[in-house]
Amino acid sequence: MPVIECPAEVKAGEPFVVKVTIGKEIAHPNTTEHHIRWIAVFFQPEGEKFTYHVGTFEFAAHGDSSEGTNKGPVLTEPELAFSLKLTKSGTLHALALCNIHGLWESAKRIRRAPQIEVESRTLTTW
Amino acid sequence: MPVIECPAEVKAGEPFVVKVTIGKEIAHPNTTEHHIRWIAVFFQPEGEKFTYHVGTFEFAAHGDSSEGTNKGPVLTEPELAFSLKLTKSGTLHALALCNIHGLWESAKRIRRAPQIEVESRTLTTW
Amino acid sequence: MPVIECPAEVKAGEPFVVKVTIGKEIAHPNTTEHHIRWIAVFFQPEGEKFTYHVGTFEFAAHGDSSEGTNKGPVLTEPELAFSLKLTKSGTLHALALCNIHGLWESAKRIRRAPQIEVESRTLTTW
Amino acid sequence: MPVIECPAEVKAGEPFVVKVTIGKEIAHPNTTEHHIRWIAVFFQPEGEKFTYHVGTFEFAAHGDSSEGTNKGPVLTEPELAFSLKLTKSGTLHALALCNIHGLWESAKRIRRAPQIEVESRTLTTW
Repeated sequence: MPVIECPAEVKAGEPFVVKVTIGKEIAHPNTTEHHIRWIAVFFQPEGEKFTYHVGTFEFAAHGDSSEGTNKGPVLTEPELAFSLKLTKSGTLHALALCNIHGLWESAKRIRRAPQIEVESRTLTTW
Repeated sequence: MPVIECPAEVKAGEPFVVKVTIGKEIAHPNTTEHHIRWIAVFFQPEGEKFTYHVGTFEFAAHGDSSEGTNKGPVLTEPELAFSLKLTKSGTLHALALCNIHGLWESAKRIRRAPQIEVESRTLTTW
Repeated sequence: MPVIECPAEVKAGEPFVVKVTIGKEIAHPNTTEHHIRWIAVFFQPEGEKFTYHVGTFEFAAHGDSSEGTNKGPVLTEPELAFSLKLTKSGTLHALALCNIHGLWESAKRIRRAPQIEVESRTLTTW
Repeated sequence: MPVIECPAEVKAGEPFVVKVTIGKEIAHPNTTEHHIRWIAVFFQPEGEKFTYHVGTFEFAAHGDSSEGTNKGPVLTEPELAFSLKLTKSGTLHALALCNIHGLWESAKRIRRAPQIEVESRTLTTW
């Protein structure tokens, strides 16, 4: 499951860092046969109807090689950090795709100051 | 132009962080009308013929909103950090797309220990 | 909502065409301010636990231009056709993202011969 | 090399179909170990400085499976058709990525009526 790390509260319009990691506790395999292919992040403003696509981050190198599986010189590891500005409170959703186990989802709520509220949960819909 | 920051030398098979930023010295606009849409990263092992796709990172939120341009609550900023493992030396290439000014490219060379060599340059082909 | 067009039944291992269209009855806007950004397609084999990512198709040009919104020379329209081979029956899911109205989903079931069964429905989860 | 098929001339603002195929003469492998991962399409208006990103089309399913390589039920084949509107003449560029052989490029020129001119060539830069 993707783990989202970011401040519990942020200032409207000021950039902050969001980190998304797969397999924080137990490393996910990263082989030609079995790997995380991408993480997509969405933002749901509180009380609004529509979801915003924040970004999709594709991890493309998994040891693929003309010399055979797992002989390639590059492994893109399933973690990333990026920078965001928000003007509303809401929930960040991270959706990850494992090439053989399909989709995984998680969410983290962000409150603008002065409210402090953090929520981390598995969503059943978005 | 994308700026790639990473160690000058890395150990084969050990993860290290790569940071790619657009507009490090002068901020690139980030509006509905004018923004960085994605950064793609490639790796060219030294002395080899083929290029590996490391990843593509899409920045999707640029103030789009049903209330009009630049009214939306989310801005994905054009910078990111990710994690990589290499088993060969070579050159990292970052390619960025501005929605109105097209493609920008840069490269940084990575040497495995014990060599120390950093190269940062604008490529004309890859 | 994405509309999926494909044969009701297909032969295992033989390529067939899948067409996905947005706004088949009423055209969706395609402007710098309001457009379909991508369609992602997933396949859920019948009776299996995991979902496969078939592909994501990004529509990138929406009139963006240095001369102002909607002055650009290119519009990528929100429809596409691609080719697929299946060895199992299951359901195709298409997920589309409108830059201001968020996510839309639809699904179509594919049966391998000799069964004929077509299902077209809006999913609430996958 | 990607092959671009489209009309030699198109009317400004009227949608037309672009087809991009890999391995038109000799089929490209499509296995977990060796496959086409994506095709990206760009448009260069004649006499202009900047390139437009038309779209990127990711082929995600290559037989990946928890039962082993090439046991999965889905293969996304490396061909696609999409719809475009142009208001200027220029050149379409298709860039394809093979997971082990890297990048391939081709281009096709489009003239608005009444000029008729078709050009299909491998680019060394864009």
